[in-house]
Amino acid sequence: MHRFEIWAPNARAMAVMADGATLPMPGPDERGWWRLDVQNAGPGTDYGFLIDDDKHPYPDPRSEWQPNGVHGLSRVYDRDAFCWTDESIQARPLGSAIVYELHVGTFTPQGTLDAAVERLDYLAGLGITHVELMPVAAFAGNHGWGYDGVALYAVHKPYGGPDALKRFVNAAHRHGLAVLLDVVYNHFGPVGNYTGKFGPYTVDAHHTPWGGAVNLESAGAFEVRRFFCDNALMWLRDFHLDGLRIDAVHAFVDRSPIHFLEQLAIEVDMLEAALARPLVLIAESNLNDPHYVTPREAGGLGMGAQWSDDFHHALFAVLTGAREGYYQDFGALGQLAKALEQTFVYDGMYSRYRQRVHGRPARHLSQHRFLGYIQDHDQVGNRAMGDRVGQIAGLERAKIAAAIVLLGPFVPMIFQGEEWACSSPFQYFADHEPEMAKLVSEGRRTEFAAFGWKPEEIPDPEDRETFLRSKLNWDEAAQPRHAEMLEWYRNLIRLRKTTPALNNGDPGNTRVDFDEDGKWLCIERGPVMTCCNLGSKTCSFPVPNEFRVLLASRDGVRIESEMLTLQPDTIAVVEASLL
Amino acid sequence: MHRFEIWAPNARAMAVMADGATLPMPGPDERGWWRLDVQNAGPGTDYGFLIDDDKHPYPDPRSEWQPNGVHGLSRVYDRDAFCWTDESIQARPLGSAIVYELHVGTFTPQGTLDAAVERLDYLAGLGITHVELMPVAAFAGNHGWGYDGVALYAVHKPYGGPDALKRFVNAAHRHGLAVLLDVVYNHFGPVGNYTGKFGPYTVDAHHTPWGGAVNLESAGAFEVRRFFCDNALMWLRDFHLDGLRIDAVHAFVDRSPIHFLEQLAIEVDMLEAALARPLVLIAESNLNDPHYVTPREAGGLGMGAQWSDDFHHALFAVLTGAREGYYQDFGALGQLAKALEQTFVYDGMYSRYRQRVHGRPARHLSQHRFLGYIQDHDQVGNRAMGDRVGQIAGLERAKIAAAIVLLGPFVPMIFQGEEWACSSPFQYFADHEPEMAKLVSEGRRTEFAAFGWKPEEIPDPEDRETFLRSKLNWDEAAQPRHAEMLEWYRNLIRLRKTTPALNNGDPGNTRVDFDEDGKWLCIERGPVMTCCNLGSKTCSFPVPNEFRVLLASRDGVRIESEMLTLQPDTIAVVEASLL
Repeated sequence: MHRFEIWAPNARAMAVMADGATLPMPGPDERGWWRLDVQNAGPGTDYGFLIDDDKHPYPDPRSEWQPNGVHGLSRVYDRDAFCWTDESIQARPLGSAIVYELHVGTFTPQGTLDAAVERLDYLAGLGITHVELMPVAAFAGNHGWGYDGVALYAVHKPYGGPDALKRFVNAAHRHGLAVLLDVVYNHFGPVGNYTGKFGPYTVDAHHTPWGGAVNLESAGAFEVRRFFCDNALMWLRDFHLDGLRIDAVHAFVDRSPIHFLEQLAIEVDMLEAALARPLVLIAESNLNDPHYVTPREAGGLGMGAQWSDDFHHALFAVLTGAREGYYQDFGALGQLAKALEQTFVYDGMYSRYRQRVHGRPARHLSQHRFLGYIQDHDQVGNRAMGDRVGQIAGLERAKIAAAIVLLGPFVPMIFQGEEWACSSPFQYFADHEPEMAKLVSEGRRTEFAAFGWKPEEIPDPEDRETFLRSKLNWDEAAQPRHAEMLEWYRNLIRLRKTTPALNNGDPGNTRVDFDEDGKWLCIERGPVMTCCNLGSKTCSFPVPNEFRVLLASRDGVRIESEMLTLQPDTIAVVEASLL
Repeated sequence: MHRFEIWAPNARAMAVMADGATLPMPGPDERGWWRLDVQNAGPGTDYGFLIDDDKHPYPDPRSEWQPNGVHGLSRVYDRDAFCWTDESIQARPLGSAIVYELHVGTFTPQGTLDAAVERLDYLAGLGITHVELMPVAAFAGNHGWGYDGVALYAVHKPYGGPDALKRFVNAAHRHGLAVLLDVVYNHFGPVGNYTGKFGPYTVDAHHTPWGGAVNLESAGAFEVRRFFCDNALMWLRDFHLDGLRIDAVHAFVDRSPIHFLEQLAIEVDMLEAALARPLVLIAESNLNDPHYVTPREAGGLGMGAQWSDDFHHALFAVLTGAREGYYQDFGALGQLAKALEQTFVYDGMYSRYRQRVHGRPARHLSQHRFLGYIQDHDQVGNRAMGDRVGQIAGLERAKIAAAIVLLGPFVPMIFQGEEWACSSPFQYFADHEPEMAKLVSEGRRTEFAAFGWKPEEIPDPEDRETFLRSKLNWDEAAQPRHAEMLEWYRNLIRLRKTTPALNNGDPGNTRVDFDEDGKWLCIERGPVMTCCNLGSKTCSFPVPNEFRVLLASRDGVRIESEMLTLQPDTIAVVEASLL
């Protein structure tokens, strides 16, 4: 027996087509639900819904299995069949995490969750504690970044489907790795989104850069919010995920007194108590608004953490000299220092790029409520060529970036391949049907024409080669300069994990000294000092003789006559010896 | 000499046409402003701005004088010429206010601010403390409600222009009356709005029921927010207003960490300190969100108060039996009791009308942060016929409504003419040019067709008769049944003003006992009990003999044998004698 259920408040009639038979459904109840128990149906039954006098069945918006892609029939999935063997795993608190963001399709040559399982040994050995998967919800086409998901409850078939995700999480947990999942609740992809046939999942009154905004505050919002909350709870409960990264929360339009994210935080807190294991919600937000990561008891929305672009932009602009687009607001060492000390650089200041005042101070919040990174899928992939920081600023500066990220006050995050300065770019790729593909390709060219790129220079997102080019080449990790970088990352991670002062996120714990003209920067975190010379001349820092050098990005760095001397583009970590 | 200034960030060239001469303006500066000092210009100079190679000048979005209507040239206004004689006036705190909402165009036969001055004696005698003017910013046409303002800095010419507003406020202050002004910052009217020629005052991404949402968070928002904040500061500073009522704050789309209303509250607080007299901001909000009226120190937006529709709807539905539209969510005495005790009825409950969960508890907030009313321009005027509560439910029930409003926990507000049960409706009227007029008339008919009204039954908003019909007929106030009602209002106001317990807004101070079947309700506020029989049978309330009847809506109400006996549709106020 299987109960088919569908929310379709405006339908005049509903039927389920199950294994070929069309069965009218009773309904709707007062909330707009239609329900039918079917005796012969169960796991494996293919089904779809017929609305009014439609002849063509649509997939279930809550389908957990789309074996034939987003346009095909849904299949009843057996939620309880998988044999979990991860029972004893408890994810470590985010404050002591080293996060690794990966894209299933390009992380391995095979591009599947099962192939990714084979790399878990490597990630655990590197010192990673949390793996963050880019979205795995089913989207149109074979490959893509995943932010155009339309069947939000179904794991993308080319990645291996739902059971493959369970195998991945189970294996990660057995390696001591927590797993975070990127979920997109602010829009539906432009292709294969049938939700609008069933109900008011989106509204016309508000637009996001990717289409109609989801309906969080208008008629029907009760069920739409349930749709997203239930989705989040499913991943955490049924797939044993340890947390979610919520894409672009700034795109939500929700003036409800209980914001969607607060509702989600409340429900996830309840689930955490029921499951008795820690769960975390991480927001992607470009609002520089401390409200999102303020605890609910203090009147905030209760997100556990959020990504911190200001730190990225400040660091990237200093290291690469980039000043185009949003980098025009950055470039001073003082801004990097402010980011390290106070998290938000734009905390109520006028932003030239945004042409408005931006942000609000967050300096009272733990810096563990923010993720710090020099690469992520967006910061790499939204560049015209998807090139990496080492390719832009050179390996020595990439080392400096890594040290500031991994020894800094934020929860550090690494993007796949960054740790060995991989040669693979991460370019924007998609796999749409021809009409949409044309729009996407043209859109990408137009976007970058504004920055002076010629159309033929821009990799075509719809060209399969663009996808293949973005895959990691694991063989190169063992090659000399890549291996050197990998060793650098290993050492930095080891140092962070073994040094309590580097795991202190308390506001005020990080102090930065710098010289804008001399181009040097010193980050003091308790007894640990990280000094960096970004100038063109050798630079000396007064350091007591009893300090010792813990790590340096070049050989031969020493403290002599109470001075630490650094060549250009060098970073070193020193510590007061505990004699 | 006069400095002409205009924000036009996207213009390639700007000129001011002043007294017929076209003068190119230097600019723009980095924020998009063009400025020109003109020697011969000054108060009285007619001017407009020419954008790029326009031949036709547009009025100044910040014009303070539109002597020829919203399409005409602006005129330089002498801000300092008026001789104020109100220096010693300090508005009383809102917590002890009796607010009177009036519409300048229909309050008197003449429909002007100067004619309204003649009624200030009457209002002061009635016991009013705060007069709230419906919007006076210039809008297209001669008459209208005023929510379609387009020249937001200019007082509507038919009302008398800027000096007439100063005369009104000055006179009100001399009568000891504070003046609040209704301002509309969530949209511009559909006719005569030239702001879009100059800059991004509105955005396409978000729509309100009345057009594009104002730009509070996108590029250019810094200046748009300044436009509205400066407008608010102008009314308070230059026109000596004591507070503002901010229309439909739920229509703002602002995800900035410093919400526009918080910015406005900060700026008004600073002005209050500078002027050394109390200023208040009152929001109209349908969000049932305590955040708006929570002090800024406690993380809220810092509005002084907001209108409370839940109380209105609960009271109106109980008294009239209305169940159409939003009244479908109301109708139980228990809801009226909840509103009186806890302010929001919908405080996180599912609303059938809204098809979503609505609200958040406000029971921790002072009830003086909420205005209570049984009539206001919307609740009367948005009815098909604009009829008053006495016409719907009868005079005795209108008396009951008045008593519950005026003796209840909220800051009471009366709508013009309510106090003598005036026979004038307040209908929806406007005075548009033919094309828009047709749309408005048809829109109104369509809106009410949904409630079963025939098109010919609906007063045509664009018919001048609809406007004239809505004017108060002051002669009737002295006629028997109207005079009786007026006396009832006078007594209620006097009782409220002289009874400390009725001026206590503290949460928990109001307790309500009721019987849903017996249809009676008793409101206890300290030593004062207000008992009301809404059933069809005589009803007795146990009351100690030492209590005395302070006021009753019918003659002959007494306490006998420790019982207070009330006929149907009667309300009485009793108090423990302080022996």
